[in-house]
Amino acid sequence: MPAKDIYHDAVKTALIKDGWTITQDPLSLRIGKKDLFIDLGAEKLLAAEKGSDKIAVEIKSFVGPSEIRDLENALGQFVLYENALSLTEPDRTLYLAIREAVYLDLFEAEIGKMLLERNIIKLVSFNPEQEVITRWIP
Amino acid sequence: MPAKDIYHDAVKTALIKDGWTITQDPLSLRIGKKDLFIDLGAEKLLAAEKGSDKIAVEIKSFVGPSEIRDLENALGQFVLYENALSLTEPDRTLYLAIREAVYLDLFEAEIGKMLLERNIIKLVSFNPEQEVITRWIP
Repeated sequence: MPAKDIYHDAVKTALIKDGWTITQDPLSLRIGKKDLFIDLGAEKLLAAEKGSDKIAVEIKSFVGPSEIRDLENALGQFVLYENALSLTEPDRTLYLAIREAVYLDLFEAEIGKMLLERNIIKLVSFNPEQEVITRWIP
Repeated sequence: MPAKDIYHDAVKTALIKDGWTITQDPLSLRIGKKDLFIDLGAEKLLAAEKGSDKIAVEIKSFVGPSEIRDLENALGQFVLYENALSLTEPDRTLYLAIREAVYLDLFEAEIGKMLLERNIIKLVSFNPEQEVITRWIP
């Protein structure tokens, strides 16, 4: 299993404050002979009889020397996991969790906007000090 | 500019043997304030008046300790560059260049087949010793 991201516990706390129940830590899935691990699985009950919202959350710290390299790595994990999840659990939606500061820096710039406008990636941003979710971009 | 992949020259030679003219080494493009560099740009003339086929090729060695991590990194670059290219040069097609051995190991397994069947990635494989292209998967 891969090492936990430095913001793992902050995101977990922020999701719980946002009304989610953490159901997997990590969420593992298998495609053929390969095992994949997504940082968190969570659920939130909807109004009666409507079942529940299910998400998977991959947390990326973006603390490397190259922001573009960090973006590429996050994007590769996101695309691989999203495709794998659609085979194993099609009703679970994957989100990439990033700090609010990373959102402002990368996803309000052209390169990040391009990925959001084309629905390549779904984001949840968080404030790591206050341990709260700041926005969902489905 | 990023360091060249260890198979950079082998792929360049293989493409030339396959009838391509290398036009950029590397191919650079700019999205907003961010610069991206794709390993190679190449062209092949088509029959008279039909213009030319244009490709961009990103070479990945897959020599890291984790094959899945290598796949994620390659996939992230591919998806980012493909989206960027579609804005700047929509008539150029991006391919990920990998060794034939990597193709057999990863892309004939479930996880790689999933990416090919869903048209997430386009591949060109090569034999690094003979420096020849072994297959195109558009």
